[in-house]
Amino acid sequence: MWDDIADAAANCAEGSYVKVQGQVSKYQGKFQITLTKMRLAAANEVDPADYLPATRFDVEEMWAELRGYVSAFANADLKRLVFGFLDDEQIAAAYKTAPAAKMLHHAWLGGLLEHVLTLVRVCRATAPFYPEVDAELLVTGAILHDIGKIRELSWKNSFSYTLEGQMIGHISIAQGMLLEKVRELEPFPTKLRVLVEHMILSHHGKYEFGSPKLPMTPEAVLLNVLDDLEAKMQAMRNEFARSEANGKGPGEMTEWVRSLERPVLDSQAYLKDE
Amino acid sequence: MWDDIADAAANCAEGSYVKVQGQVSKYQGKFQITLTKMRLAAANEVDPADYLPATRFDVEEMWAELRGYVSAFANADLKRLVFGFLDDEQIAAAYKTAPAAKMLHHAWLGGLLEHVLTLVRVCRATAPFYPEVDAELLVTGAILHDIGKIRELSWKNSFSYTLEGQMIGHISIAQGMLLEKVRELEPFPTKLRVLVEHMILSHHGKYEFGSPKLPMTPEAVLLNVLDDLEAKMQAMRNEFARSEANGKGPGEMTEWVRSLERPVLDSQAYLKDE
Amino acid sequence: MWDDIADAAANCAEGSYVKVQGQVSKYQGKFQITLTKMRLAAANEVDPADYLPATRFDVEEMWAELRGYVSAFANADLKRLVFGFLDDEQIAAAYKTAPAAKMLHHAWLGGLLEHVLTLVRVCRATAPFYPEVDAELLVTGAILHDIGKIRELSWKNSFSYTLEGQMIGHISIAQGMLLEKVRELEPFPTKLRVLVEHMILSHHGKYEFGSPKLPMTPEAVLLNVLDDLEAKMQAMRNEFARSEANGKGPGEMTEWVRSLERPVLDSQAYLKDE
Amino acid sequence: MWDDIADAAANCAEGSYVKVQGQVSKYQGKFQITLTKMRLAAANEVDPADYLPATRFDVEEMWAELRGYVSAFANADLKRLVFGFLDDEQIAAAYKTAPAAKMLHHAWLGGLLEHVLTLVRVCRATAPFYPEVDAELLVTGAILHDIGKIRELSWKNSFSYTLEGQMIGHISIAQGMLLEKVRELEPFPTKLRVLVEHMILSHHGKYEFGSPKLPMTPEAVLLNVLDDLEAKMQAMRNEFARSEANGKGPGEMTEWVRSLERPVLDSQAYLKDE
Amino acid sequence: MWDDIADAAANCAEGSYVKVQGQVSKYQGKFQITLTKMRLAAANEVDPADYLPATRFDVEEMWAELRGYVSAFANADLKRLVFGFLDDEQIAAAYKTAPAAKMLHHAWLGGLLEHVLTLVRVCRATAPFYPEVDAELLVTGAILHDIGKIRELSWKNSFSYTLEGQMIGHISIAQGMLLEKVRELEPFPTKLRVLVEHMILSHHGKYEFGSPKLPMTPEAVLLNVLDDLEAKMQAMRNEFARSEANGKGPGEMTEWVRSLERPVLDSQAYLKDE
Amino acid sequence: MWDDIADAAANCAEGSYVKVQGQVSKYQGKFQITLTKMRLAAANEVDPADYLPATRFDVEEMWAELRGYVSAFANADLKRLVFGFLDDEQIAAAYKTAPAAKMLHHAWLGGLLEHVLTLVRVCRATAPFYPEVDAELLVTGAILHDIGKIRELSWKNSFSYTLEGQMIGHISIAQGMLLEKVRELEPFPTKLRVLVEHMILSHHGKYEFGSPKLPMTPEAVLLNVLDDLEAKMQAMRNEFARSEANGKGPGEMTEWVRSLERPVLDSQAYLKDE
Repeated sequence: MWDDIADAAANCAEGSYVKVQGQVSKYQGKFQITLTKMRLAAANEVDPADYLPATRFDVEEMWAELRGYVSAFANADLKRLVFGFLDDEQIAAAYKTAPAAKMLHHAWLGGLLEHVLTLVRVCRATAPFYPEVDAELLVTGAILHDIGKIRELSWKNSFSYTLEGQMIGHISIAQGMLLEKVRELEPFPTKLRVLVEHMILSHHGKYEFGSPKLPMTPEAVLLNVLDDLEAKMQAMRNEFARSEANGKGPGEMTEWVRSLERPVLDSQAYLKDE
Repeated sequence: MWDDIADAAANCAEGSYVKVQGQVSKYQGKFQITLTKMRLAAANEVDPADYLPATRFDVEEMWAELRGYVSAFANADLKRLVFGFLDDEQIAAAYKTAPAAKMLHHAWLGGLLEHVLTLVRVCRATAPFYPEVDAELLVTGAILHDIGKIRELSWKNSFSYTLEGQMIGHISIAQGMLLEKVRELEPFPTKLRVLVEHMILSHHGKYEFGSPKLPMTPEAVLLNVLDDLEAKMQAMRNEFARSEANGKGPGEMTEWVRSLERPVLDSQAYLKDE
Repeated sequence: MWDDIADAAANCAEGSYVKVQGQVSKYQGKFQITLTKMRLAAANEVDPADYLPATRFDVEEMWAELRGYVSAFANADLKRLVFGFLDDEQIAAAYKTAPAAKMLHHAWLGGLLEHVLTLVRVCRATAPFYPEVDAELLVTGAILHDIGKIRELSWKNSFSYTLEGQMIGHISIAQGMLLEKVRELEPFPTKLRVLVEHMILSHHGKYEFGSPKLPMTPEAVLLNVLDDLEAKMQAMRNEFARSEANGKGPGEMTEWVRSLERPVLDSQAYLKDE
Repeated sequence: MWDDIADAAANCAEGSYVKVQGQVSKYQGKFQITLTKMRLAAANEVDPADYLPATRFDVEEMWAELRGYVSAFANADLKRLVFGFLDDEQIAAAYKTAPAAKMLHHAWLGGLLEHVLTLVRVCRATAPFYPEVDAELLVTGAILHDIGKIRELSWKNSFSYTLEGQMIGHISIAQGMLLEKVRELEPFPTKLRVLVEHMILSHHGKYEFGSPKLPMTPEAVLLNVLDDLEAKMQAMRNEFARSEANGKGPGEMTEWVRSLERPVLDSQAYLKDE
Repeated sequence: MWDDIADAAANCAEGSYVKVQGQVSKYQGKFQITLTKMRLAAANEVDPADYLPATRFDVEEMWAELRGYVSAFANADLKRLVFGFLDDEQIAAAYKTAPAAKMLHHAWLGGLLEHVLTLVRVCRATAPFYPEVDAELLVTGAILHDIGKIRELSWKNSFSYTLEGQMIGHISIAQGMLLEKVRELEPFPTKLRVLVEHMILSHHGKYEFGSPKLPMTPEAVLLNVLDDLEAKMQAMRNEFARSEANGKGPGEMTEWVRSLERPVLDSQAYLKDE
Repeated sequence: MWDDIADAAANCAEGSYVKVQGQVSKYQGKFQITLTKMRLAAANEVDPADYLPATRFDVEEMWAELRGYVSAFANADLKRLVFGFLDDEQIAAAYKTAPAAKMLHHAWLGGLLEHVLTLVRVCRATAPFYPEVDAELLVTGAILHDIGKIRELSWKNSFSYTLEGQMIGHISIAQGMLLEKVRELEPFPTKLRVLVEHMILSHHGKYEFGSPKLPMTPEAVLLNVLDDLEAKMQAMRNEFARSEANGKGPGEMTEWVRSLERPVLDSQAYLKDE
């Protein structure tokens, strides 16, 4: 690396895009690049979406499926409420691109929508076994529980937290968004508002995970359990892929996974492994 | 209470059945019984099942439904394994009457079967959303995870723990039963045995709940989450009933529920309450 | 107790007021009352305030002192914000009578105002030693942090939680009240809103105490510490009084205090005790 | 390092043995080796035991001492049971070479036997002070408690966990081995089986350490306490040696020891240090 | 109970001794006493030792055995130190009668000495297996670790805590006693003082049990483990006796033991039970 | 680095001072020094104070202010006690230079005095709001609570723990110093001694922070809360400075702060930031 490149490097910060020129060579069996030129890329030279991981599903298809479930709601107030969000262009645009996290599960563009859609499907499949559960109320909670993430996270050039995200958090941001939307829809039944608000506040399931309230209704309990399940299953899926990428065989345990506090095993790969 | 009754009472212990004779009167607005005769009931005078709470579902129907799911298994080894238990007359007889707990959720005759059947249904409904999950392996885990309870609990005249139950626990009892059954079925694939054994050992999900291993496969994670969900939903159901029995109105929170460390609210009753 | 009294008693519930007639006598060295008549009291026969504990300070004097501090604010936005609450007649009426808790510290009418006023005084005395702290921002936090209690608690005939209080909690209720008030005052500086919102959300200081965020600014840290101090000092004061009422000598430790997880000692009484 | 060496290196994996040729030189005060040739070693060129740390005691002497204690048992059933394991050639061969851990205390060939023998000696010395303790039952527990480690660990070229070890764990593996051995010895007294099984299951002493049961008999309590003591004393011994090897003086505290969450001090070296 | 007796009762407090006269009769199968006279007993009418539980061992024999171990010390400084305490008449008198606790293990007159003596015996039996341990230093720690209890507890008419006991605690009281004794014995080796002081401060083994330091020397670790063992074994012994007194059979588990957070089983009684 | 420099380096240890000669050059945009000579510095060539961070306040002024507060004490015994420490030349010399910690808050020469002085000021400002608090007793606690740090820490060439500091800790060291000083001042009121001793022992506020007693008097509670506050505010101050030094903008959150388990925000810089 020559001094002028060092100078160029000094102008970079986390999230900068650069143009480089150099030569590829092989050293001790590994490829390496020797840079000869480097400069900051102009804004019109890059599309950040090319550099950030993105969902492998079709966003508009997912969006349509989600809206379809709401359209079929029998409860007019819940339908009004959810569409109050989904029909809001600014919210919809963010909802369709936001990641679901900075680093853990679903940390990619469209990850929030992908996470919510799977969650909604599982909620719909599970609710019928529990007569105490109002399936539409549950699906409402599933669609709105993480909506604060569109203001908690920033996904311009890289995934990071906004200052409001760190100081307020997506749970309380979502609660504020709900109260505002409810005001726009007045008159709106207080009881429904309280039940939806409670699902948002309690969806992390434990105080130590940042929920100011524990789930106290059948819908809040189910939402918390299935949301947690979704996150765990996606985390395992990520680990299986990473383990394979690191050269582990299909029948081997992964390395220790910090977020799960354990290693995991891809049971189907293990069964198929000879 | 006269002295001869006191003498009779001295012969009673927890779980004794007695015959009494007396007079009903009203005192300060409440009914009371004044006993005039009392003696221990002979064994042929009572059917304990009359005095212990029992499932409100038809045991044989539940049993048939459960067997039906196993009959449809594509995996011959898992089918052999589960029927190895269900076809064992002694195990089947106990499985059909055992409660699922001494005091908490499903603490009634047939409670174990009722709990397992609901769990199996939810497992079957949920598995398709997770391609990492082998549904038959999961259902096998759901059917066998609590089978140690038929030796951990005693439900003769009252619900209690056996000494082996307290010293070994249903998780390790079930593990022993599995190993024994696997030996009878040899040759049996080691990998399948390890995966089923792991589901049994890890189904409580946390060390502090008595699981010696954390769930490390997709099936084990899902089984733990859905088993825990089943217990929580049943606990809420019980609390709603108790709260109503205690005279609370439909729109009121229940009292503090110790097992859940919170009060709960029957959201549907609350919504309907005027 | 005669049957007709039993009937009358059957009409009572927690929080009912009754008129009784009876005779006082002495039995085994203790006074007792034998009731001869009892009926529910009419609403115009009782003033609940006669039966609920109340602050020993003058409410209007406290209120005036509190307003005086705000009047002196140099920051016009914070002044607008706080008076937005204090000038709201409905809020003011509730703020002046609400207790600060159902059972623990300051559980009496006017307790919320009394608690807040002492806290404000200590905040004002402490802030000058910490140049990182904006005293007016801190006092704003002190005045608003518990304002959600006016909807979390009910103090009509007895002190209890409202359903919204249990399901949402005073922290999130206060956050909602803040956002609504800020909207009425628009344009209002976003940064100030975020800092005040953060103080409200974090004032319990720990996730396990129901705060969805930990204190992350100097003002939020100081508010949490001094609020906690106020509660502890008031709890000790209550215990010293209770201990004396129970016949303990001035130099003795109190009994174990559950909320503090320790017994306490009135050091000044202990030093004066001969 | 030249490219052909890089190629050779690419064929290596963790636990591979290689033959190398090179030149020793001195650079900046430290010795270094410049490799000129490198290839994988053939299996018959290496004896893994030369490369793995091993106990400094004579394995056969330790084995004989252990058997001697069992030979002296008055309880014929316990004697049958323990010899059922020690006389099993496959088990004996593994028991004599297995390490007691992958990384912590006694992580060397023969470490399991060394750990167990010391534990048995301390058990025998301690039991007489506690009349509630059956010394032979205790020694049985000491000999069998960790026997699952011969399947939980692998010590071929390096120390690692087997897949079964990670998924089932040595506690449950040992329980399975016990039940199998008991079946071979039938009739065997159920009560003795339950008590030994309980010692195995509870020997980690706490749920969070992976024991599915807490110690509930005098022997189980004593075994857990002395097993834990053994591990702690060996850990301190290791740290004293490492600290000295790192150039610390005899009177100095060691660095922070992660497994013990504290630094430690070799008190005797400290006292002798001038 | 007549009024004059009520008056007499009003003069009693916890720990008072009374003289009563009355008639024994039988009511509903149980004996009861009807009091006719009652008065406070004069000091010379009662010997408190008749009413407090006491050790079943001979105090002077225990004392002599303990002194014998110290007499044999090779380390003159430790010998001087321990006899500095044991030869102090005031300390010796208290040491021989003090209980070891208010309510838990060894809560009887002479309990402290009994506890210490057993602990010393086990220390002496165990130390030889750990070459890192200085047996005399360990025994010194065993004799002095709980000496602060002679000022922490009061055992005049009943067992209770002194105010100094609650405010300072036996660990810090003992530390103060050690420093004072060391000053009387100056010159005394600083290193020995630090090691003994450390054993006293760390003997509870964990911060949450009130030790301001964790055990960091081999002697401190061993003392903590064996002290804890002694307490657990004595607690089990107490529970076995209580369980038998409550009519449980020899082969039954005891009730839940709060201090141990589990029920326990007298394994020897269980084995002998037919 | 040449070999002779490597030899010189071999003679260095943590805290050594060296004289070096070399050439400054620029490489890849960063300055670097190429050493040509290096030797250990002689003791008279260096003043360690030049190399250790030091308070930015005037030590003698701080000392005079502190003494001034004590001079004004009305309680003659507390005045005697505190001056017993402050007039002790050896203690005073250490008190004026000691850091308050090895690495965390106030880790600089004079840091202990600076920390104590701020704490005393806040104590004096806060005490008047709590009539249960004896302000002079509180200030006595504030001045003496950390005095054990002059023996727990060493600040010769670098900041480190003494062996006594690690084995006994500043809390117990301070308690020993108090008891010794009290003996010199006999007769001294026992009650005052117990109250001061209690403040020292309990000032960390929780068992897990190394306090063997929880605060049980109003002064002990207040001292613990304000001491903790002082540490937190100083920690935030340090983080704001570090964050700015690392190039973060004034309106940005700091990085995650390990000791506080959160990032923090300089609210005033954030408000001023455009």
